[in-house]
Amino acid sequence: MTYIRLDKLREYYKPEIPAVLEENYQVDIDSSEDLPPVEEEIKRLFPNTCHLPLLTIQESNGSKRNNMRPLHVGVVLSGGQAPGGHNVIAAIYDALKAYHAASRLYGFLMGPGGLIKHQFIELHKSLIDRYRNSGGFDMIGSDRTKIECVEDFERVIDIAHRLDLSALVIIGGDDSATNGALLAEYCAEKEEKLCVIGCPKTIDGDLKNRFIETSFGFDTCVKVYAELVGNIQRDCYSAKKYWHFIKLMGRSASHLTLECALQTQPTIAIISEEVEAKQQTLDDIVQIIADVVVDRYNRGYPFGVVLIPEGLIEFVPRMRRLINELNEVLRVNEKNLLIVKKSEVVRYIASKLTTESAEVFLSLPNEVAGQLMLERDPHGNVQVSRVQTEELIVSLVRKELKKRKERGNYDGKFSALTHFFGYEGRSSMPSNFDAAYCYALGLTAVALASHHANGYMAAVGNLVAFPGEWKPRGVPFVSMMHMEEREGRRLPVVKKSLVDLEGAPFRYFVEHREQRARAVDFRYPGPIQYFGPSAVCDSTTITLRLEHDLSAEEDSEEALREQH
Amino acid sequence: MTYIRLDKLREYYKPEIPAVLEENYQVDIDSSEDLPPVEEEIKRLFPNTCHLPLLTIQESNGSKRNNMRPLHVGVVLSGGQAPGGHNVIAAIYDALKAYHAASRLYGFLMGPGGLIKHQFIELHKSLIDRYRNSGGFDMIGSDRTKIECVEDFERVIDIAHRLDLSALVIIGGDDSATNGALLAEYCAEKEEKLCVIGCPKTIDGDLKNRFIETSFGFDTCVKVYAELVGNIQRDCYSAKKYWHFIKLMGRSASHLTLECALQTQPTIAIISEEVEAKQQTLDDIVQIIADVVVDRYNRGYPFGVVLIPEGLIEFVPRMRRLINELNEVLRVNEKNLLIVKKSEVVRYIASKLTTESAEVFLSLPNEVAGQLMLERDPHGNVQVSRVQTEELIVSLVRKELKKRKERGNYDGKFSALTHFFGYEGRSSMPSNFDAAYCYALGLTAVALASHHANGYMAAVGNLVAFPGEWKPRGVPFVSMMHMEEREGRRLPVVKKSLVDLEGAPFRYFVEHREQRARAVDFRYPGPIQYFGPSAVCDSTTITLRLEHDLSAEEDSEEALREQH
Repeated sequence: MTYIRLDKLREYYKPEIPAVLEENYQVDIDSSEDLPPVEEEIKRLFPNTCHLPLLTIQESNGSKRNNMRPLHVGVVLSGGQAPGGHNVIAAIYDALKAYHAASRLYGFLMGPGGLIKHQFIELHKSLIDRYRNSGGFDMIGSDRTKIECVEDFERVIDIAHRLDLSALVIIGGDDSATNGALLAEYCAEKEEKLCVIGCPKTIDGDLKNRFIETSFGFDTCVKVYAELVGNIQRDCYSAKKYWHFIKLMGRSASHLTLECALQTQPTIAIISEEVEAKQQTLDDIVQIIADVVVDRYNRGYPFGVVLIPEGLIEFVPRMRRLINELNEVLRVNEKNLLIVKKSEVVRYIASKLTTESAEVFLSLPNEVAGQLMLERDPHGNVQVSRVQTEELIVSLVRKELKKRKERGNYDGKFSALTHFFGYEGRSSMPSNFDAAYCYALGLTAVALASHHANGYMAAVGNLVAFPGEWKPRGVPFVSMMHMEEREGRRLPVVKKSLVDLEGAPFRYFVEHREQRARAVDFRYPGPIQYFGPSAVCDSTTITLRLEHDLSAEEDSEEALREQH
Repeated sequence: MTYIRLDKLREYYKPEIPAVLEENYQVDIDSSEDLPPVEEEIKRLFPNTCHLPLLTIQESNGSKRNNMRPLHVGVVLSGGQAPGGHNVIAAIYDALKAYHAASRLYGFLMGPGGLIKHQFIELHKSLIDRYRNSGGFDMIGSDRTKIECVEDFERVIDIAHRLDLSALVIIGGDDSATNGALLAEYCAEKEEKLCVIGCPKTIDGDLKNRFIETSFGFDTCVKVYAELVGNIQRDCYSAKKYWHFIKLMGRSASHLTLECALQTQPTIAIISEEVEAKQQTLDDIVQIIADVVVDRYNRGYPFGVVLIPEGLIEFVPRMRRLINELNEVLRVNEKNLLIVKKSEVVRYIASKLTTESAEVFLSLPNEVAGQLMLERDPHGNVQVSRVQTEELIVSLVRKELKKRKERGNYDGKFSALTHFFGYEGRSSMPSNFDAAYCYALGLTAVALASHHANGYMAAVGNLVAFPGEWKPRGVPFVSMMHMEEREGRRLPVVKKSLVDLEGAPFRYFVEHREQRARAVDFRYPGPIQYFGPSAVCDSTTITLRLEHDLSAEEDSEEALREQH
């Protein structure tokens, strides 16, 4: 039997592209939709880029342009890995070469840090071809350096001059888009030739708005997590004796957890945004879970699966207040802490907190209190991400069940296992959807660059249709910005999108969750498929389907039989 | 765009079956190969089944048999979940109905426990069809109850009489096969009609010998782990700053870790059998890893991925001696321990151990020493499986690197992350290979049942060819047994297969490991595919390829381009 590696074969895959980008196209002002009004403060900070219009890319009636001059473009990957990044770069390369054979693409190495340090390579076909449809960011690397001060901007302009760059494409999330917006404004102010263009990346799915339907990487990443959650659910239902608590990556928004819940239908899924809106405490969450554990035990289901978003703790209002107070108390008492007895530290700290926060602090298991006090970032802040939320919840649920047992309200056994999925998904080989979406984003970025569109995010819409029908656009960075307090400073930033509690995906989830908590309604999505029927391999998330008023349910059994 | 769930579509997949099982076949004695000699002690314990010959299934020259009487068969899943179990059952059902339309299949519920308690359901087409090609064991459940005493055997014979069973198929691993062998001998002795037939299941891959090329579930499970390890490697190579330590399920043998290493080519993979053969200590392992960490740091690769088999600790001779001593010391000093100060417990226990074991014990991090002392099973034995081996190794490597730093031999930063993959794989949807292998095993089991072959394991060989060319056989349980000391008792058991240090897979691994430790040679296998080119979707493990003298490497680039 012949043996071929999937990752090798994928290099030859050619994603379908939006029909409008196949042929001769032109970039025009899109007057079909209004941009949201820009805040006054943003307008003052971005005088040169705050009035940019929405752009659309459409078929050109003229004959195919004969571009006389090559384009030089730089590209940089910014922030955490997301599946499909290499395809954005491959598409930029292909589009540049189609634009003019002498065009050049430069890749800055190891992220914005490499951009500022002028570390780069020219990207050639042999390298590009090896990375088509592959996961990871290893072609040129990435980092989290911010580009936010004049010195940084000048370093960028410096290298842009040296390489004669017409455009810099920043592939990144909301923070990277904020950097892009600041740099674009600076270029506009200085009347530089350089156009700054963004591509919406993030597995968290929180770079999302009326014009950006989703960020790339979200589709693949959530499908990897859903495969694993589904497998664990199948194991759970087979063994019929464990409760699995699964934490999913995603620091702020719970989009990943929500979509994963839509795909796998676990017993319980906690959505941070709901916790915050309802001002729930950790104990409220624990009570909800314990109620379900007891109810299922009585129904003969002593098992279940609970999904927990990584960022949960910061959305519990009382925990957030505790953390803010802790940051202050730990800073002020740094020296005193050195002389307090180890066994007295928790009590000592508690004595410095407000009554409410002290109560929350003392209710935490010892290890968690320890993690909160000891793990601090270089700015001296508590590192909430180090808290093992899944372990914390299990230990609190166990305590609560013990109480109920003592009261005679429950006599079951609670065997819990914990998991955390993060790194498993964010560098996965992109799904067909992300492969095509990223390729379309890269082509769109070059269309915008050839139009000298500075200060734009490449956007592709109508994503629940086949890629041929997708709609490429340019969305001004500034239209996505607002003022926000970050680490004590009021700053202009690209807005993070949280789960909309009024939106169709969350409403669908809420409609079905009681049933899922009561019975066994698990789904097992299985691994991402690349070659099978389009209905299996090419469709995207249930979130997007619901947001486009499509059904969350699959199409009828007949359609299924026909496919086979 | 139409949307169809993969798990729904898979219900319609029809695995290819061995050509010989498609048509009229007959079961004959296979005199082409000799069975290994049976130990005298085994002969004495199995007087009625120790002389059984190897059986082969081959095309029949006669006209198709018209079976006059239906067959009644019972099936039970035994032990941990493995991908493909449902397909064995589906094949038994299909083969029974093909044998005679009035045949019946009974599924015993929740494993051998349900068999002894006479809990069962009759399996009908509608149920079977819903579970075709699905993962998990949830169709009828499983457990780990042993069938080993006369009372158990009589309970089984009792239900066999009531249901008029001709055969009982036990789908399980080596321990379940041992139970099967004991039950078969009892049936033979009592001249019962019931035939006991086994199907080789276990993700660990340790039910393996000259006649059983692999156990089912291993192929799928290792591919799921390889997908995840590959994804983490891609992330590791993109970020270039972390060491990932990944523990893989598999209590005894390291087949899973070895195959995973062959597929993903990590920086380091520890193979327990080698550790034992070389009499390595934990410190030896730590030194090996630390050397690689330092060497890679000097070469500009401050990152890597290390695979660790779950059962490692029990293969480190000094650790095993320590554990044996601890079991004794903890038992003898149970009461004394209650009055020893918490902070003194480790020192107290150490004082009761031999000098060598005390040294090992005191060198362990506190949490691990604690885990060894506190987590004991119902028999009072130390629960080695609870030790977080991946955390232990990381903490020892960190300590070693700190020493080297102090000596001025290393000035890097060691950021380590740990993972454990187990439940993610063992209930996954079976690969095409496991779907077909399990289906062939089920058909073979019915062929053996129709031949009244009591005391046999269904076996299918030539597994690196297409399923049409696979060779079904019947292998006597007794031919796989030997005497072994287990928990202080000398018992007849089906032999566990460990990694053969002289075998082709391990030798191939050794030939390449230096290069993989020095550079970046990662592979990213990606998710299991069901629909694509056969060379991607249907091939099995590299272990099997190497054991069949095929190349571990994929076929040439041209073959690849042709495929696309």
